[in-house]
Amino acid sequence: MKAAVWYGKKDLRVEDRELKPLKQDEVKVRVGWAGICGSDLHEYEEGPVFMPNESKDELTGEQTPLIMGHEFAGIVEEVGSGVKTIKAGDRVAVNPTLTHGNKPEKMDIYDGFSFIGLHGDGGFTKYANVPESNAYILPDSLTLQDGALVEPMAVAVQAVKEADMKFGDTVAVFGAGPIGLVTILAAKAAGATRIIALDLSEKRLEKAKEFGATDLINSGETNPVEAIHALEKDGVDISFEVAGVAPTFEQAIAGTKARGTMVIVSIFAKSIDWNPMQLTGSGVKVTSTIAYSPTTFQQTVDLMGTGQLTPRGIITDKIQLDDIVDRGFEALGNDKSQAKILVELSGEM
Amino acid sequence: MKAAVWYGKKDLRVEDRELKPLKQDEVKVRVGWAGICGSDLHEYEEGPVFMPNESKDELTGEQTPLIMGHEFAGIVEEVGSGVKTIKAGDRVAVNPTLTHGNKPEKMDIYDGFSFIGLHGDGGFTKYANVPESNAYILPDSLTLQDGALVEPMAVAVQAVKEADMKFGDTVAVFGAGPIGLVTILAAKAAGATRIIALDLSEKRLEKAKEFGATDLINSGETNPVEAIHALEKDGVDISFEVAGVAPTFEQAIAGTKARGTMVIVSIFAKSIDWNPMQLTGSGVKVTSTIAYSPTTFQQTVDLMGTGQLTPRGIITDKIQLDDIVDRGFEALGNDKSQAKILVELSGEM
Repeated sequence: MKAAVWYGKKDLRVEDRELKPLKQDEVKVRVGWAGICGSDLHEYEEGPVFMPNESKDELTGEQTPLIMGHEFAGIVEEVGSGVKTIKAGDRVAVNPTLTHGNKPEKMDIYDGFSFIGLHGDGGFTKYANVPESNAYILPDSLTLQDGALVEPMAVAVQAVKEADMKFGDTVAVFGAGPIGLVTILAAKAAGATRIIALDLSEKRLEKAKEFGATDLINSGETNPVEAIHALEKDGVDISFEVAGVAPTFEQAIAGTKARGTMVIVSIFAKSIDWNPMQLTGSGVKVTSTIAYSPTTFQQTVDLMGTGQLTPRGIITDKIQLDDIVDRGFEALGNDKSQAKILVELSGEM
Repeated sequence: MKAAVWYGKKDLRVEDRELKPLKQDEVKVRVGWAGICGSDLHEYEEGPVFMPNESKDELTGEQTPLIMGHEFAGIVEEVGSGVKTIKAGDRVAVNPTLTHGNKPEKMDIYDGFSFIGLHGDGGFTKYANVPESNAYILPDSLTLQDGALVEPMAVAVQAVKEADMKFGDTVAVFGAGPIGLVTILAAKAAGATRIIALDLSEKRLEKAKEFGATDLINSGETNPVEAIHALEKDGVDISFEVAGVAPTFEQAIAGTKARGTMVIVSIFAKSIDWNPMQLTGSGVKVTSTIAYSPTTFQQTVDLMGTGQLTPRGIITDKIQLDDIVDRGFEALGNDKSQAKILVELSGEM
């Protein structure tokens, strides 16, 4: 079967691969659509980041070259002999997260995790065998394209849950890339009133408005901290740092009210020069989020199913697997107006 | 009246000062005992830090030279005409914190604050006029020496409250100076089970044990993070950073379990080089504490009154006002076995 395979930095090849044998506890998914994630781009531009290059991954037992793609949905074509809750014909979104499962859910991810499509073969291909417990049945109201958006949407749902956001809170989202956009959507769906989006790109800010931002701040044109305080005198209740650089880290804290929470959603590639006194002086609490729990993934499916979360607008292009390098990875890297690019695999809806 | 007056860095003079006229809402306290605080030492060694040197402080309306001392207790000798809850003869501990009072209590301190004894005349003298609302009546079970310890003890009570510590939690305290010691005491009184004290000084660690630490780690001799995980596999529930330097900041996070909390208690004099990924990877939350709310100050008086908090052992010397520079500030700066030095003013108990 044709697959997009990561061999190394800037070396993603569309080539023929064999599907591994289906295990007892696995379901065979005929992939409909798969999204390209920021971390996929990271692997392409600067990898290996997560890709197990030197030795086999502890949880997947696999090693590069690997089929990329961890945001995907499809139709179950076959199930392993031990599978009980899923049957052929079920339409499923795949939760790519694998954990040791030795800890309570909220701590489990911090005990180490691997990703289908980053630490093992993923969804940029026709078929993917995934554990039964990683397949989530989609309600009829969702298409397989929607299903491919569950994963990034779940990141934002988890971020809002980690923020301990209360109904009616005010929010600031630093960075209006794909995850910033779905964070805005999630905050809105959880009942945030004012949602301030901050970015350097006007195009992204326009998109943020479509996603529910009530106020837009171009941090390149105006002092973002002053602009937030002009809107919310004491600062916002919750800020989400979705940019991952030193200035936004400090700005996100400075824009938050005393005893409010700043949530680190982004991955910081580099260390920063920072004085912890910023917390002592402001009373702002800092927490972080990474991926999502199984409960959050299911909640995301449910919230999308009911129409409370409608991330479809995040899709800026739909491409064929053969075009994944040029119209996928290169486009995402070079064109900041791109948010989510979906790759058509079987193309079923 | 004789007073210890801050004129500048390394320039603390014991000299005669006039007591300012008593205001309507003030009580005149005949000071019994006053403690020397780490921030007093800071002003002496490196000041001005808080001292209003250039212009009058916004809340006190005062300016240097100022009488130092903000940890003190005494007997009320006279009350202003508007005072209702305090009468002459009452034994009181002074809460030195002045705020604008425009915000709910838990946010008020972050809206700006000044300290009696740092931003205005304080307690290293015979009499101090303080607002009625800053005087807290001491129960009969507490001496005026105990009263002088309420302030540092309240810092620790607030720290434990900010940590959202649960009954039975495990705790690590980084730094066993005076505030580290009372933090251990407060954590114990709030029901922490294991309390791990970490410091570079064996003398301080011995003291930490007296204060209730169950495990001692000399961070100069052993890897503190490994040593914590050897005791608590997943790390402690709560860590308190009471040292204020980059290594302990990272160690405190690394010693805490996923979704546990690290509380910054210390004042960081310098910025640090740090990657916020440490939070993303560990799931540890960071919060901070500064001073205490009026409620916490009263709770501290109450908890000391019932005997649940007994910080007396923190006192390592008692000196006369005339000796405050040599046997007070210089001793604290040079001798790490010193914790709390009390200055005898009227000397009443």
